[in-house]
Amino acid sequence: MTATYQRIVLASRPRGVPTPENFRLENVPIPDVGEGQVLVRNHFLSLDPYMRGRMDDAKSYSAPQKLDDVMIGGTAGEVTASRNPAFAVGDRVVNANGGWQQYTLSDGALLRRVDTSKVPLQAYLGVAGMPGVTAWIGLNTIITPKAGETVVVSAASGAVGSVVGQLAKTAGCRVVGIAGGPLKCGIVTAEFGFDACVDYKAGRLGEDLANATPGGIDGYFENVGGAVLDAVLARMNAFGRIAVCGLIAGYSGQPIPIANFRSVLVNRLKIQGFIVSEHMQHWPTALAELSSKVGSGQLKYRETVAQGLAAAPQAFVGLLKGENVGKQLVMLD
Amino acid sequence: MTATYQRIVLASRPRGVPTPENFRLENVPIPDVGEGQVLVRNHFLSLDPYMRGRMDDAKSYSAPQKLDDVMIGGTAGEVTASRNPAFAVGDRVVNANGGWQQYTLSDGALLRRVDTSKVPLQAYLGVAGMPGVTAWIGLNTIITPKAGETVVVSAASGAVGSVVGQLAKTAGCRVVGIAGGPLKCGIVTAEFGFDACVDYKAGRLGEDLANATPGGIDGYFENVGGAVLDAVLARMNAFGRIAVCGLIAGYSGQPIPIANFRSVLVNRLKIQGFIVSEHMQHWPTALAELSSKVGSGQLKYRETVAQGLAAAPQAFVGLLKGENVGKQLVMLD
Repeated sequence: MTATYQRIVLASRPRGVPTPENFRLENVPIPDVGEGQVLVRNHFLSLDPYMRGRMDDAKSYSAPQKLDDVMIGGTAGEVTASRNPAFAVGDRVVNANGGWQQYTLSDGALLRRVDTSKVPLQAYLGVAGMPGVTAWIGLNTIITPKAGETVVVSAASGAVGSVVGQLAKTAGCRVVGIAGGPLKCGIVTAEFGFDACVDYKAGRLGEDLANATPGGIDGYFENVGGAVLDAVLARMNAFGRIAVCGLIAGYSGQPIPIANFRSVLVNRLKIQGFIVSEHMQHWPTALAELSSKVGSGQLKYRETVAQGLAAAPQAFVGLLKGENVGKQLVMLD
Repeated sequence: MTATYQRIVLASRPRGVPTPENFRLENVPIPDVGEGQVLVRNHFLSLDPYMRGRMDDAKSYSAPQKLDDVMIGGTAGEVTASRNPAFAVGDRVVNANGGWQQYTLSDGALLRRVDTSKVPLQAYLGVAGMPGVTAWIGLNTIITPKAGETVVVSAASGAVGSVVGQLAKTAGCRVVGIAGGPLKCGIVTAEFGFDACVDYKAGRLGEDLANATPGGIDGYFENVGGAVLDAVLARMNAFGRIAVCGLIAGYSGQPIPIANFRSVLVNRLKIQGFIVSEHMQHWPTALAELSSKVGSGQLKYRETVAQGLAAAPQAFVGLLKGENVGKQLVMLD
């Protein structure tokens, strides 16, 4: 009997909001390891909003996920077999695209060995990995915060937003989060140390944001779009900077119109979209800073962990609805 | 009998689209010239879209025009009396805010002496003045065009747009204008040398723009906003740059929502608003290049000239409706 492992492929493209039916769980044989190859047993899968865009075949910044192929996704795991001199059995590694599966065979090009003595393995998929670097790059290369300025972050309890706020706080800024519901807002202020958090579900977004930003807004890290972006545009100060990392509110349907675009002219704003994988020159600096701060306890993080690969589709749907707090992971053991 | 001159003050703030009734023509005595002062007889008044914003008392990048004060505006004229050693009678000068009036008394701080041997006096209010510098700065500091790229300009037959296109053409770009009506579009291509011009009034904006930009759009100089901006966003290439100089479509009413904001993320766009007066470090270089190119005939321009100060309000209303071609001036003689 051949040993098998589980993987999830894209079964169909969603119309609007994805459902678990868009995915298919398969059992396939564990492959043989060829010359130069590495086999990794994935312990954690990262679920991220960008995956929603890949499920469409619309024009975007990267090619669409193919139907019947393993879903893309970052993974963290352990080398179980290696015929590649760069990796040894037992190495802990992160694979930028290990995919939604329990095992990944590769040539090692996308693998990064990580030190789990001070930072837990799965944190390299969140605060000390791609989401953390996303926060670092948007904040430091686009928002460029100065002490005394006010920085606002949407999806503030999430894997990216929580890091943005903590780094901006270290830079001497007043930091205001936007999140959905009192539970998340409480975590944003009490745990992540933001100065304030606006609950966009409370129905007074404009008013609450104005109260939380008495001196206006100098920098905004955009993860959601829609009504939140509009409310922020109305509070921007002259020469404000907006880093556009995600527009999750419009991912699964009609785009949400922006009414306050005039603020760009009135306040001479700079708005810039970015993709973390296109700024590789900053990754070493960012990763070193982030993992050091996680190791020392200076950088806090939260995780929501689904159990087992079969739970991944439902967890992903929940992520798009904002049901997670902090980094959404799937434990694959 | 004391000699008098005409001036126009803001009589009331417009609700929506301005009308001539928002202005009041007055006759006032020509003032005496004090120590250090310069009296200038204005020959030309510049009318510009930015004036619409000043007529409101809403928050904007500069203080509102006060009621019953002389309307702000650039002028070009001749020194008729001077008790300031820096200026002599007969000097041709431009005043960045001479106002809507036949004479301006000042301390000389805003005056710039100009050479009218090769460039006509009034061109220093347009192609070789503030509008030309606006084009230069938006193009060269935000769009930063590279040879082979496609640059699109709205209000392409106007004082700013026509210069943007000609400078981008010199930089080796494919240049596409957007203008209203076949007359303007004809001027944009035949006279200003754009590669193509899309008539937004023809009712096929998206389709016509797609046909005119087969390789997508790399740089966009935004003067109008609204539906035109949306159509351009849908055609932007990766890493495109948008300089936001004006949003005239939304100046006199409700802001026009932007539906295609998602392009900012998908294409990693940079969008930046700017005000020409905040980039004074570039003015000398820009003015030198522009007046040299006007003098040599390399830079073409058009003017629409209203006769007499009393005609200024109607001409300004027409400017906001796009009735002018090229620079809108008022001859004050």
